[in-house]
Order: sequence, then C-alpha cells, then structure tokens
Amino acid sequence: MHFRDNKRKVDYVLAYHYRKRVCQHQPGSGSPEPPHRSASSAIVSNGETGKSCLEQQQQSSGEHESPGQLGLSPLDALEEEKRVQRKEYERNLMEAGLEIEKDLENKSQGLSFVRIHAPWHVLSREAELLKIKMPTKKMYEIKEEGGILMKLSEIWFRLTEPLQPQVPQDNTKMKSLSYPFSREKMYLYNIKDKDTFFDNATRSRIVREILKRTPTNSRNSMGISTLIANNVYDAAYPLHDGEYEDQNGEMNERKLLYQEWARYGVFYKFQPIDLIRKYFGEKIGLYFAWLGLYTEFLIPSSVVGVIVFFYGCITIESDIPSKEMCDQHNAFTMCPLCDKFCDYWNLSSACAMARASHLFDNPATVFFSIFMALWATMFLEQWKRLQMRLSYFWDLTGLEEEEHPRPEYETKLLQKKLKTKNTTENANEDEKEKLTWRDRMPGYLANFSLILFMIMLTFSAVLGVMVYRITTAAALSFSTNETTRSNVRVTVTATAVIINLVVILILDEIYGAVAKWLTEIEVPKTEKTFEERLILKAFLLKFVNSYAPIFYVAFFKGRFVGRPGRYLYVFDGYRMEEARGCLMELCIQLSIIMLGKQLIQNNLFEIGIPKLKKLFRKLKDERTEPKEINTNQSKDPQQWDLDYSLEPFTGLTPEYMEMIIQFGFVTLFVASFPLAPLFALLNNIIEVRLDAKKFVTELRRPDTVRAKDIGIWYNILSSIGKLSVIINAFVISVTSDFIPRLMYQYAYSQNGTMHGFINHTLSYFNVSHLKAGTQPENSPFAQDVLFCRFKDYREPPWSPNPYEFSRQYWAVLSARLAFVILFQNLVMFLSVLVDWMIPDIPKDISEQIKKEKSVLVDFFLKEEHEKLKLTESFITRDKHRPQSGIKGQRIRAASFCHFSQSQKGSLASFSSRHTEV
Amino acid sequence: MHFRDNKRKVDYVLAYHYRKRVCQHQPGSGSPEPPHRSASSAIVSNGETGKSCLEQQQQSSGEHESPGQLGLSPLDALEEEKRVQRKEYERNLMEAGLEIEKDLENKSQGLSFVRIHAPWHVLSREAELLKIKMPTKKMYEIKEEGGILMKLSEIWFRLTEPLQPQVPQDNTKMKSLSYPFSREKMYLYNIKDKDTFFDNATRSRIVREILKRTPTNSRNSMGISTLIANNVYDAAYPLHDGEYEDQNGEMNERKLLYQEWARYGVFYKFQPIDLIRKYFGEKIGLYFAWLGLYTEFLIPSSVVGVIVFFYGCITIESDIPSKEMCDQHNAFTMCPLCDKFCDYWNLSSACAMARASHLFDNPATVFFSIFMALWATMFLEQWKRLQMRLSYFWDLTGLEEEEHPRPEYETKLLQKKLKTKNTTENANEDEKEKLTWRDRMPGYLANFSLILFMIMLTFSAVLGVMVYRITTAAALSFSTNETTRSNVRVTVTATAVIINLVVILILDEIYGAVAKWLTEIEVPKTEKTFEERLILKAFLLKFVNSYAPIFYVAFFKGRFVGRPGRYLYVFDGYRMEEARGCLMELCIQLSIIMLGKQLIQNNLFEIGIPKLKKLFRKLKDERTEPKEINTNQSKDPQQWDLDYSLEPFTGLTPEYMEMIIQFGFVTLFVASFPLAPLFALLNNIIEVRLDAKKFVTELRRPDTVRAKDIGIWYNILSSIGKLSVIINAFVISVTSDFIPRLMYQYAYSQNGTMHGFINHTLSYFNVSHLKAGTQPENSPFAQDVLFCRFKDYREPPWSPNPYEFSRQYWAVLSARLAFVILFQNLVMFLSVLVDWMIPDIPKDISEQIKKEKSVLVDFFLKEEHEKLKLTESFITRDKHRPQSGIKGQRIRAASFCHFSQSQKGSLASFSSRHTEV
Repeated sequence: MHFRDNKRKVDYVLAYHYRKRVCQHQPGSGSPEPPHRSASSAIVSNGETGKSCLEQQQQSSGEHESPGQLGLSPLDALEEEKRVQRKEYERNLMEAGLEIEKDLENKSQGLSFVRIHAPWHVLSREAELLKIKMPTKKMYEIKEEGGILMKLSEIWFRLTEPLQPQVPQDNTKMKSLSYPFSREKMYLYNIKDKDTFFDNATRSRIVREILKRTPTNSRNSMGISTLIANNVYDAAYPLHDGEYEDQNGEMNERKLLYQEWARYGVFYKFQPIDLIRKYFGEKIGLYFAWLGLYTEFLIPSSVVGVIVFFYGCITIESDIPSKEMCDQHNAFTMCPLCDKFCDYWNLSSACAMARASHLFDNPATVFFSIFMALWATMFLEQWKRLQMRLSYFWDLTGLEEEEHPRPEYETKLLQKKLKTKNTTENANEDEKEKLTWRDRMPGYLANFSLILFMIMLTFSAVLGVMVYRITTAAALSFSTNETTRSNVRVTVTATAVIINLVVILILDEIYGAVAKWLTEIEVPKTEKTFEERLILKAFLLKFVNSYAPIFYVAFFKGRFVGRPGRYLYVFDGYRMEEARGCLMELCIQLSIIMLGKQLIQNNLFEIGIPKLKKLFRKLKDERTEPKEINTNQSKDPQQWDLDYSLEPFTGLTPEYMEMIIQFGFVTLFVASFPLAPLFALLNNIIEVRLDAKKFVTELRRPDTVRAKDIGIWYNILSSIGKLSVIINAFVISVTSDFIPRLMYQYAYSQNGTMHGFINHTLSYFNVSHLKAGTQPENSPFAQDVLFCRFKDYREPPWSPNPYEFSRQYWAVLSARLAFVILFQNLVMFLSVLVDWMIPDIPKDISEQIKKEKSVLVDFFLKEEHEKLKLTESFITRDKHRPQSGIKGQRIRAASFCHFSQSQKGSLASFSSRHTEV
Repeated sequence: MHFRDNKRKVDYVLAYHYRKRVCQHQPGSGSPEPPHRSASSAIVSNGETGKSCLEQQQQSSGEHESPGQLGLSPLDALEEEKRVQRKEYERNLMEAGLEIEKDLENKSQGLSFVRIHAPWHVLSREAELLKIKMPTKKMYEIKEEGGILMKLSEIWFRLTEPLQPQVPQDNTKMKSLSYPFSREKMYLYNIKDKDTFFDNATRSRIVREILKRTPTNSRNSMGISTLIANNVYDAAYPLHDGEYEDQNGEMNERKLLYQEWARYGVFYKFQPIDLIRKYFGEKIGLYFAWLGLYTEFLIPSSVVGVIVFFYGCITIESDIPSKEMCDQHNAFTMCPLCDKFCDYWNLSSACAMARASHLFDNPATVFFSIFMALWATMFLEQWKRLQMRLSYFWDLTGLEEEEHPRPEYETKLLQKKLKTKNTTENANEDEKEKLTWRDRMPGYLANFSLILFMIMLTFSAVLGVMVYRITTAAALSFSTNETTRSNVRVTVTATAVIINLVVILILDEIYGAVAKWLTEIEVPKTEKTFEERLILKAFLLKFVNSYAPIFYVAFFKGRFVGRPGRYLYVFDGYRMEEARGCLMELCIQLSIIMLGKQLIQNNLFEIGIPKLKKLFRKLKDERTEPKEINTNQSKDPQQWDLDYSLEPFTGLTPEYMEMIIQFGFVTLFVASFPLAPLFALLNNIIEVRLDAKKFVTELRRPDTVRAKDIGIWYNILSSIGKLSVIINAFVISVTSDFIPRLMYQYAYSQNGTMHGFINHTLSYFNVSHLKAGTQPENSPFAQDVLFCRFKDYREPPWSPNPYEFSRQYWAVLSARLAFVILFQNLVMFLSVLVDWMIPDIPKDISEQIKKEKSVLVDFFLKEEHEKLKLTESFITRDKHRPQSGIKGQRIRAASFCHFSQSQKGSLASFSSRHTEV
C-alpha cells in the first residue's frame, strides 16, 4: 500500500507489459545491475527510471539513433516506441508534481507497475482547481423534527436496529459545513494530518484527473485513456484499501464493506450507503441507493401482488364461468382447432386452463394495475426526494458537471480542420470550431438505418417464432402418436418460449455491442452526451427485444384468426394460431421470459462470465510467460498485483439496464402477472449483494466519479411509468376477459349473475359450411354434430347476416375502448396528483439547505472578524510611525465580504481577504 | 416632479385627507400663520412639519393630554389618532434617511401630500441590501450568429422596420455586465451622475421597500400597506415621469410610451418591451411580453383557422350529405319534435342548418385541432425561451425571490401565540412558530365547501337555462301565431345563450370576490402563496363558470332524449331537448359566449368601469369639499395631484385571467369553432393597446416588481393545453359527424361514396307505436304517414328487437372511442416530442450566460490586479522603513479572489479586497 519507504501512500497504479531486447552488453558500457540486488527489488525513483538496453547502447555509442536505424525488428520497434512514450509520460507526470515508483524491469518480458503518489502540495492544488468540497471546522446541528414524528422515527430506528449495518457512523446529528477547498483559506478546514485529510477516494480522483490531462509530447495524444487504448499501458487503477478476507489483519473500509454489505449472509440488512459512497464515489453510491430504494418499494407491491394472486386462488371455486366451462353437462362442441386432422372437441377439456386463467384474470388485477401505476409514480417521487437528501448530505448541491470534449471528438475535429485547410484557405476558422450538422449526417443516417434494421430483426425473430409455432403444431398434429398429439399445445408453447428467450439473450448481447459502436460513429462531444446516447440506443434496442414477443402475445396473437369456414392462412394449409385464455398465455410468456432473463442473464452471466474471463486471462498470462519463474507473485503479492488480477470496472450501464428492463416487467404488464413484483424482489435481494460482491471482491477499484443524479435513467424510468398506464389499460380491456364479463353481468344476463356467460361468448357455426377438405377426418361423432361452437361474438348461421360480427361484439368493443379511455385518464390524473402532492425536495432538507447558507455566511463573517481584529492591532502599531508619504489615505482595514447567494440551492460563495501584515 | 428647491426629485408620494378642528386661537399661543404666505405654499420640512391646532393647544397649555381628555368628538379623536400615526410614521421615515416635503394643511379639511425623496446615501445603502443588479463599466459584445442566420435576421429586421417602435435603443450588440450593487465596489459601476444612476423605477422601488418596513410605534403595525388599510393614508404611489399628452414639453418616458405604444394608432407595431420594463418593472414587462408573444402566435393559427373555414365554404357544394338533406326528392318524414302540438316535418326544411354545419364540421377541423394542440405546446415552449431570453437581458438570472410573511399572517400568528400562552404555559414556544394544520383546518374546510357550492351554483345555472329552453320551447309551440311557432328554435336558442352570457358575467364578478375572500380566510404565509392560491381558486371558479354551458352543449345536450314513443321527460309533458347539428349549436354557443364575454367584459367593462369610478370619485370629492374653493387644483396642478386623480393599480391578475380564459376558448373547443383564434387575435390587438393605454394614462404608476417568470399562470396554461387534447378528441369523435361519416364511407356504403348517408343515420319509427295523447294534432298528413324517421342508430320496427340500438350504433360508438384513444395518444406523443425537441434555453442565450460568467471573472481579476499594483507600490515604499516589530511576517499583497460559480445560470459571485493603504 505504500512506497518502499513505507511512508508515501500509493494512490494510483499503472500497469504494463514489457519485452526487452536481449542486450549484448558491451564491455565498459553503463553500469550493469548489481548482482546483490534481490530480483524483486525496485528502483525508487523520483526522476531516475531504469534504463533500457537500448538506452544503454545509445549511451555507449554516444549518439542518438532512431530504433529503426539500429535494425530492430518491427515488433521490437513498436515495443521501443511504447517504452519511449511511457518514459515521456512519466516524466510529464513528475513535472506535474506526482511522485513515482517503478519496479525494475529485470526479466526479458513481464508485467511491471508504476506506482504513483500525490504529495500534499499537488493534492491541495488540484483540490482547489477541482473545487472539491471539504468539511470545514464548523459543525452545525441538523434540526430534527420534533414531537410525534421524532418519536416515530426513534421507534423505527430501534425496531430496525438489527437490520442496520454495523458501520462506524459519524455523528448523524451534526454536519460539518463543507466548502470548496482553497489553499488560501486553509485555516478554515479541519486539517489534523495532511496525509489523511483527503481520503483515499479523493486522492485517487485527483491523481486520475492529472493522469487524464497529462500529455505525451510525441504523439499529440492526451491522457491515460489514449495510452491505454494504444496499449502503451495495460491498466490504470487506484488501489483497494486492502484485503477483504483476512481475519486478523487490521480493519479497512473494503473489509468492512465486505462484512457488512457484500455478503449474502447480510442480505436482510440495509446498505451502508455513506460508506459505499465514500469508498466508490457518488455515482456508484447513487446506483446502490437507487437499487436499495427500488428493492424496498418492491416489498409492498409484491405483498399486494401476492394478495391479488391469493384472491384469485380463493375465488376460483366460486367463479361461475370456469365452473360452467368445467361442467360436463354443458356439452359445448367446439369447432376443430386445425383443418382435417383435428376433431371436434368438448370445451370442458380446457377446464384446467380456465381455472388457471382465473388466478390471474380476476377483478383484483384491475385494482392491482391502478395500484402499480401509482406505485411507479410514488417510487419516482420518492427517488427524487432521496436523491435530494443524498445530494445535501454528500455536499453535491451546486455541483457543476464539467464538460471535457472526448478525445475521439477532438481527433475528428482535428481531421476536419486539416481537411478544411487543405481545400479552402479562406474559410473562417472561428466558425469551424465545432462539427456541423453536415459532418454528423452520415453518423446519424447510419444510426437511424441500423436501429431500424435491428428493430426489424427483432420483429422478424418474433415472426419466426410464430411461424415455428404454427408449423410445429401442424406437424405434430399429423403425428400418429396419441400422446404427442394431446400434448401439442404444451410442447409448442414451451419450446417457442424457450426459443424466444434464447433469441432475446443472444440479440441482447449483439445489441449492446451495436449500440456502443453506433454511438462511437456519432462522435458525441462530451462524455456525458456519449453516455446518454449510448444508454438511449441500448435501451431502445433491448426494450424492443425484450418486449416484442410479449406485445405479440398480448395484443396480436389470436386476433386475426378469421372464423370457421373462413380461416386466415399464413401459408397454404397453415392456419393462424388461435389463442385460448389470452391472459394466461401472456402470463406464461411473461413469467418465463422474466425469470429466464433474470436467472440466466443477470445471475449466471454476471457470476459466470467474469469467472471465465479471469480464467482465460490467467491462462493467457501463463502461456505468454511460461519460461519465467513467477517469483514475484508467489512470494508475497502486493496490493497492486492482487488488484491487477481483478477485472476492470466498465461502467454502471449494464447494471442499470438490467434493473430498468426489470422495472418494465414489473410495471408494463403487471395486469397479467401480479407475481412479477415478488419475483423481482427476490431477484433484487440477491442482485444487491451480487453487485456488491462484484464491486468489492471482483473488480479493481473504480475511479470515484461525482454525480448529482442518475441522469437519463430517471427519464427512462418515468417514460416507462407513463407507458405502463396505457399498456395496462389495453391489457385489462383487450387481453383479459374483464370487460366481457362485466358487460354480460350488467347488460345481457337474465338474472344479473354470470350464469350462461360461456354460452354467451361462443358463437354457432353450421358444420355444413366448412369448406371441402377441411372437415375433420376420422371423427367418431362427425355424424352427430350439426353446429360447432367457437369463441367470438358473431351472428348465428340462421340469422340474416350469418357469421358477421354481432351487436354484442360491437357493444363489448365499445365498452373495452371506453374502459381504456377511462382508465388511462383516471390513472394519469391520479399520477399527476401524486406528483403534485409530494414535494420534490423534502421539507426538512430544503430548510437545512437554507440554514446551511446562513451558517456559512455567519461562519465566514466570524472568521473574517477575528482576522480583522488581528490586522487592526498591527495597523495601530503601524500608525505610531510617521506616515508622511501616504498621509490622507485611509487604511481601510475592515474586511468587506460580499455574500451573494446563487439562486438554486447552491452555496453562497465569496472570497475573503488575507492580509497578514 | 421636484421638491420646492427644484433639485431633489420626488420619488414617492403619500396622500391623505385631513380634517382640522377649528382652533380657538388663544392669545399668546404658538405663532399663527403669517398672512403673507400664499395659500399654496408649503413647509419644506426636514424635521419640521406643520403643527396642528391640537399641538398648538398642547404647547400653550404646556402639558400633554390625551385627545379624549380634551373632550373631542369621536370623529375628531379618530382624526387626531390618524394624525399622530402619520406624524410618527413620517418621523420614522426621516430616521431611515428619507427626505420629506409636506403641503401646509391650510384648510379645515382637504387633501394633502407627503412627498418623499431618497438621497444618494439611502439609495446606495438599499440597493446593496436589495442586491439590485446595476450595470458596471464593463461592456461586452453579444455574439451573434454568423452566416445565413445573421443575414436572415438582418432581412427580417429590415422588413419589419416600419413595425418597430421608434424608441431610442441602447446598443443592442453590446451588453454591460451587471453586478449586484455594492458601496464598497463603487468604482466598478459607471456612475456619471449620482442623481441619475438609479433610474426612476429603481428609486421608487427602493423607497417603497423602506415604506414597507418602516413601523409606526404606536400600534405595532408595519409598513405603509397597513396604514393605507387603516385609512391613515389614502394612497401611496410613485410619480409618473410627466405628462403624456402635451406636445411641446420635453420628451419623457411616459410620453414616449404613449406615442409609440399606448395608442390605437400604433396597433401594428411591436411593443417596446425594454422600455415598458424600464418604466413599469419586470412583472408588468413580462405580462406584456407574454401578451405580445401570444398575439403573435395567434396570427398563424387564425390564418389556418380561416383556411379551414374557407375549406368548409368551398366544399359545401360538393358535400353529399348536406346535398341529400336539401334534396326535396328525398322526402324523409321526420317524427314530430314535441308531443301533440308539433307536426311531422320534412328533413329538407333543416337544409340551411345542415349546410351551415358543414362549414365547421368537415375533415379539416380534425387536422386543425391536432394543429392547435401542437400550437399550444409550441407556444408554451417559445414562451419559456423568450422568458429565458428576457431574464438574461434584464439581468434576472439568479434572482432570488424573498419571502416576507404577509401582515395578515403575522397578526394571526400573534393571536395564536397569545392564546397559547394564556392556556398552556409549558408549550414549547419553538414549535409554535408556524400555523399548524389544525389552525388552518377551518379555513380549508370553508374553502372546500364554498368552492363546491359555487360550482354547484354554476351547474344549477346551466340546468336552469336548460329548463328555460325546454319550457319556453314548449310554451311557444302552443302559440297560435304561425311566425312565432316557426321561429321557436331561433328565439329559444338566442335568448338562452344571452341568459347564459349574463349569468356568466354576473357570476364572474361574484366569483372574483369570493375567491379573494376565501384566500384571505386561508391566511397564506407569503405574498407569493397568497397570489398563487387566489389565482388558482379564481381560475377554477371562472373556468367552470365560463365553460359549463359549453360542456353541456358539447357532450350532454341531445344525448338523453330517448326515442320516439319512449321519450325522456324532464317534467310531465316536457321532453328533454333534442340536438340538431350538435357541432353547429356548440359553435353558436361558443362564439356568442366568447365574443360576448370579450366585448362586454373585457372591453366595455375595462373602459367603462374605470371611467365610471373616476366620475364617481370626482363627484364624491366635490360633494365632500363643496365649500372650499379649489384654488390649488385650478391653478397649476402638480404631477402628484394629477396622479392622485388616476386609478390605483390593483394587480395583473384580471388581465392574465382574461387572457387565459380566452386561451381556453382558443384551444379547448377549437375543433368546433375554427374561427376562434381569429376573433381572439382581433380582440388582442385591441387588448394590448387598451391595457397599454390603461397603464400609461389611467392608472397611477405601479410599483415596480421584479419577477423572473409569470409564475403559476404558466402551469395553468400548460394544464389547459393538456386538457385541450382530450376535449378536442371528444368533440371530434362525439359531437361532430366525422366518425359516422368515415364509418359509412368505408364500412357501410355500397360504392364507397357518401350517397345514402342521411338515410343510413335515420331510424324508422312506426307511427302507430306513439303513445296515446302524444300524436300530432291537426296534422294535415297524419293519415299518409306510416313510418316517421328520427336520427339515431336503432333497429327498425320490423326487426325482432324493435328500437334497440342497432349493430351500427355500437360499431360507430367503438369507432368514436377508438378515435379518442388514437387522437389523445398521438397528439400527446407529438406534444412531448415537440417539447423535447425545442430546448428550454435558447442556445445563444445559454452561451451568452456562460460567456458572461467568464467575462465577469476576467473583469474582476483585472480590476483586482490594477489595485494590487497600486498596493504594491505603496508597500515597496513602506518596506524602506524599518519594520522590526512585524518582521518575519510576510505581507501577502496578492489579491486572492475565489470564484465559485453556482450551478444554474446564476452569476459567479465573490467578493474582492479593497486595501487602499
């Protein structure tokens, strides 16, 4: 964790692979390595790095020759080039004030580390530059609510005590005033020890900033990211705080996080959000805070979901339609399900399906989907409040995100400039400072067309599965095996859903890569826009991918079947598939895709792939360095060695994406599957710890990034919430049997009960109207059947317009549509109401922010006042001396601080004088 | 305009009426008035005010006795009490640094003025306290867009040159950097003349602030508003800049505003918004800017509206349904419109109505209502942008609105405190600092119940008018006069609409008062919340009031008629009214209410009522002072006399309310009346000048109020915009014939044309099914009629279910509802898209704001640097002297400015040092 002097802390590590040419040591050349040094010893450098064989040669020959002239192989030349870049870069780093320690490159090839330490003067300078808010000496009390509320929160705290993570907490009732660090006002801050004033996360952030902006002169390239992209360095990472597992070692934050957060054993505990933020930075802290809130919110919704499900279970016996369906006495002879090979069948054979349907398709689901729409609004509102609270306690109010152009953007701009100069010299340089619409056109076009293509691909996959279902069902129904034929439906549905799932999983991976590539083509200006566009694209593609088959089942399947005697055919002889118990099928589809996706993609992939990658990398490393004996690693691996063997952190996008898609499953089709929140909850309880474990044990320490909100994810969540209202309205009205039942009960039923509902929904068909060749073959009771029934509202054969849609059909359709309008507007109105009633900023926080402003002003005024007194005492002394030259000019010793408070929650900022006469 | 010394400017005027007791001058008492003084002369006071008779007595008697003891009449005592309060208040004002000039109270009763002047030291102190942004010396160029855009804007400017008001403009390409005024940094500002550095509006604002917070000791009351409420003063107002009419006098801003803005003659010109803002303050400036933008936006919409109307006119000849209706050959014998007295009638007699209907009820209206929904979104977006632009140019960015509790709130709080103290001594004082839910409960309850009652009242008014229509129609149809009977419909409709209009106008006035009273009951804490709640309540009541009859006509009238043979009766014998040409009636209703409201309420009331009030006041004044000869007024009236005779300014709420209700007419039912935007435009062109004229010529100068936005009005506008989508969807689908026509053309018509549509929409009724006693009496062709027709989709008498809703009915209903869903979601989606595509802050403004920040930093750094140099030179001189005492301590002369930029568009704020050694 420290340099060899055991004093200076390692704040950042750069790792690289090196290959050395074998040097023919010329006699009398530069000092050969002293043999008494141990193999693992390093040169502690501040300015002196190990000299390569080439340099030694150059030194010996006394002149600088380019590597090429020395007759190096291309591979060696590349290696040499990298070495030069590294050397230059490290020299620049040292010029920026960083201190560097390097391992000795004592093998012909291998891994070497550059360890970086930032001394106090660099830290303080950069902290001022980056406007990092640091706590000042001033503490102030956080005003708590009095009366009943305080007592309630106390009781709550005591009740949840075993659920609280055992993390040493600062005094929660006091908050120290934070203020952007300034070297001029050092006296304001509570600096006990210059080594620990900035914590590890801040130190590494500062170093990262320097690494980012330090150039290598040779290639006009900027910063570490370009160097890593060019393979000059393998990796750059801050160090973890220490081991997380060893039992007897002293406590460190990583170990604490592991023990209290990143284990499955503590799944029931709250997350130590403040510690997470301290260790990983605000951006990751916000992610886990969001995930925690989401998981908490899933608890009530899954409870209600389970109640709705049980309501279905309990009322199943009293449900008249399913009873009627199962009643053998009501012999509804149904029309055959396929041409020729299928026989007439009795409706009571679908009894099980009807009963199962009732579990999900009952009036309680209507209530549940209204509940979930409001739940989504409430969740978003609460998140806004929590975010505000966190940004107050984490001192993020007034954080200005800086916009550095991305390197790729700058490269493109440079190319453009060069091009412009070549063609027209007289072009106004000022106007060409940014990429115009014309430059971006190809990128946008490529984006648009490829995204369109991808969406088409998804749709065709859905279509393919549909065709698969139709053909397989037809093929299986030819089968002579009786069991095969009886299980056609189950077999087909199950295999189709699994195919769907596999397609989704594969396309998901492809789409992730495509979205990234497309965004790079676009060349967005800043890192932030890059991230936003990437997320939008990836979300769009993955959303369509995940939900297209579900949409198909919910709204299209079984709606374009035609009617007996005039079926719709996909191909010759293949009828469109019929839907039986729409909501049931939707439910199956939804649950399998949701569970499958969660189990396979999230958990299996997330655990398995990193392990595989690690294994692969290990194998590769072993293969490339087979001959050398790994004395280093085997002896006593240092923290940097350990961290190097971990996976690099690649961003939070996949984590968020996974959760957002899940949020979609929970809200969008919740009317059809009330257990979705429960499954999501179970998944998330694991997910939190899984992610935590990944961050603590399997990833290199991520760079700490400041962020005041979760950015575009919030917009996506809110869009999903809005979409869910209309989708649920359609699911209830179109997919479920809710409306037809209601209509029957209140409009058509003779006695106001549901008796006769099944009969009412089935239309008659005159068997003699079946087209020649489509009649069932080998039907044992073909002779007895005059009319068969099918599920639709059509005129009977004996009416003047046989088989046309009946009055009931249109009446039910009107009712369905009216329900959609009513539901959508009611729920939207309620959502707006909830949104309006819950203030975005919690009242106590907005009061605290106001208070903080005034405390800050007071604090500085006091500090100034004290200094003023000091100054005055000197001045009084000064005055006793004769002041002929400057007589008549008053010495205005009073400090005039002007406090201007910016408009929105930002901190009053000012500067004060420091006249130490 | 000035004090008697002709130097000090009058910044504010207080006016009061006085009554003097007739003093019995005792011999030897305080100096009687010197007779050589002119009657109009005044005592220029700074400390010395005219002594009242009472004081003279007191002085003479040598002791202070209370007025009561002296045996004054109660009226006199009150008068005396007021005088004491005035004296005290004026003394306090003088203590605050204001200078005062008073007229001599030389009559037994009359009007007297207190003129107030704020000297420089008061102005500068208050400007610093109020953080008024003042221009600094630094100017910077506003970067303009280059290339084609610049040329376009130049062309635009040249084209509109005659439309630009001829107002002297500052250099529009340069903007001087503004910074909150600070006396310490006086050197930063461009102070040429201390008398004109703060313009009149700012000066009066400052004085107003002092007037507001200066207490009178006696009654624990705060500020001028309480004093005016208690009639201690009659009025308090800043002075206008001078006469607006005299031709030869020198130019002043008021005259300029009158000439270039507040005349009907310049109706075609743009408004000089910057001048308006300068003269009336930001709040009024924003109102006129908003009104201007709204009026401009009405131009395209009224053009499109007129085109839609003309499309109707042109296509009227080719409209098959109305042709069919007018065709005498198609003899549709319609069922009688009332029982017994009405005869069968031929549909072709309603030909004119059908043709007129087509003007408004054609496919183009669907397009137009989509257009108007997007128009509304676009308007709101553009307003956001304009507001942002104005707040940049008016230096409102970073403006923090301060929240002073209202006097009423404080009084209530005081009462509560006293009460609490009386009952329980041990109550925690801290917690009682605000009014709790319990204290407010009665107010809220009263609010809720009264608002509910008011809404009920509106509905019952609508109901009353409906009943009036039914009964009158019935009564008139008994009439034996043929012409009366033939004009029943016209008479009834016209009178009913006029009654509606009158009811609306009366209730509007009542509701305005009720809303105000209700809000006062609520005791909101700050002026801002008071205004917001008042507006919300007034808007709710007036909205319901204005639109209830229109809603009735659009969605309810004629929908619950029943059918021939089974009509719905309101009372015995009075059938529910039928609707013929729904959209047409809606259109009539809408246009009459809209036009009537605009003409009568807005213009007549706005012009007439102030005139009446003025007349009334004049009469009253003359009546109360009949005996005195008005020598003062007749001679040479001063500006304060002139201004006193004007109306006081009472807030912008009525102006906004009027426009917002109009916005509702323009957007909510635009589908039924495409000419609404045109009428609104015509009204607004007058309205702008009318308001302008009112402000410039008829009102006392309003206090300038700063505001960064139009506040809650924006939310109301945006809600109306959202509501308009769903209402228009229903108007098109339910009220208009659009959907049935479409359905007929594509589903029922034999040949895809509209031929036969009329026949299709009419159901058959077997005349023999008419109930006994309801058959038409005295019908000439009662014998020939077997079937009569009525407009509905019902089964014919010969079907198995006679007179039930037919299949077509339900099919059309489904189509209507489907259209609502489609329309609503499509338009909402488009609106969101428009909202998302237009950035809220114009790009150039956001760039300018960024630039301003950096310019500000540079500017101050430079200023500091120059001072630093000066300081250093002194220090160098200082160093030559021996400094044994403070040796070892460095003089850090460098100025350290710390710039912290707040997060959102707010100004970088800081303070700098001023060491003038």
